[in-house]
Amino acid sequence: MEFSIQKAEAFLRLCAILLLVLTACLVGFDSQTKVIFYVEKKASFKDLRALIGLVYITSLAAAYNLVQLSCYSFSTRCKGSSLQSYKYLAWLRYVLDQAAVYVVFAGNFAAFEHSLLVVTGEENFQWMKWCNKYTRFCFQIGGSLLCGFVASLIMVFIASISAFNLFRLFSPKKFLLLKAT
Amino acid sequence: MEFSIQKAEAFLRLCAILLLVLTACLVGFDSQTKVIFYVEKKASFKDLRALIGLVYITSLAAAYNLVQLSCYSFSTRCKGSSLQSYKYLAWLRYVLDQAAVYVVFAGNFAAFEHSLLVVTGEENFQWMKWCNKYTRFCFQIGGSLLCGFVASLIMVFIASISAFNLFRLFSPKKFLLLKAT
Repeated sequence: MEFSIQKAEAFLRLCAILLLVLTACLVGFDSQTKVIFYVEKKASFKDLRALIGLVYITSLAAAYNLVQLSCYSFSTRCKGSSLQSYKYLAWLRYVLDQAAVYVVFAGNFAAFEHSLLVVTGEENFQWMKWCNKYTRFCFQIGGSLLCGFVASLIMVFIASISAFNLFRLFSPKKFLLLKAT
Repeated sequence: MEFSIQKAEAFLRLCAILLLVLTACLVGFDSQTKVIFYVEKKASFKDLRALIGLVYITSLAAAYNLVQLSCYSFSTRCKGSSLQSYKYLAWLRYVLDQAAVYVVFAGNFAAFEHSLLVVTGEENFQWMKWCNKYTRFCFQIGGSLLCGFVASLIMVFIASISAFNLFRLFSPKKFLLLKAT
């Protein structure tokens, strides 16, 4: 049973990597050119800061999960050696996983809000809506945001697993005291 | 020492409530009227969807933390009674705390990105920048976003504490098996 949670974590990380890469590609290769009032205009992800941010964030998060996945065999060996050194590794993984999931989640949500603004516009600020003009562009962004949200949900599970792996090492009675093995 | 982590949690929750209420008030009471091209225009938080969302999110999060704080005495009594029922309570608190921190974090980040758009504008979409006109309005939003970010950092710590309280109940050897007390 112990082995199976590690397997599940590895599987989740693999799914997260695939989805994150898909998100980055969908956003990164999204551009549409259209003639508006006799002027050729191009919409690409570079027009919205939040989308540029999303590409960077998802790429970095995919790379991070890949590193974690390749450290996986090392981590199991380390657990065999001593509980103390395993504890430090578990702390490191916990903090990094938490940071990663917050960054990915926030990046996705910001891109979503930004994209909603492109769909609806903002009258009082005289910001036009653009999605009735760049329809295909907008649908592709929508799809990538969906992928991104699924990826961040998976990363929430991964973060929970690493929290579980860390905190179950501690005593339920005394504060921050390692259990006797 | 056991008592002190509960005290620390209560203190953190109190800080989070104050900061969240402060954020909601700063955003909610922020409006500025200016004469632009002989027309009187008013900027308020209602112009940006992300800011309306932020007001709702921070108010709800403050209310949630207040409820948790008032359940605090109940929770300690429950721990005294049996480990099994305490486990369910700990799971509930863990899930709710996690959800709350993600929502607050994402809401803050979205509002931040949105506000940045008001500061810089977006040339390709012909979206004007407005902060050179509504300066006081923008500074107040900036201050409230800062409060919101500090509040979400505090809530990250609270979520870590509730994860710690839950997962240390489990055995470090077997998966999802409660430790013997």
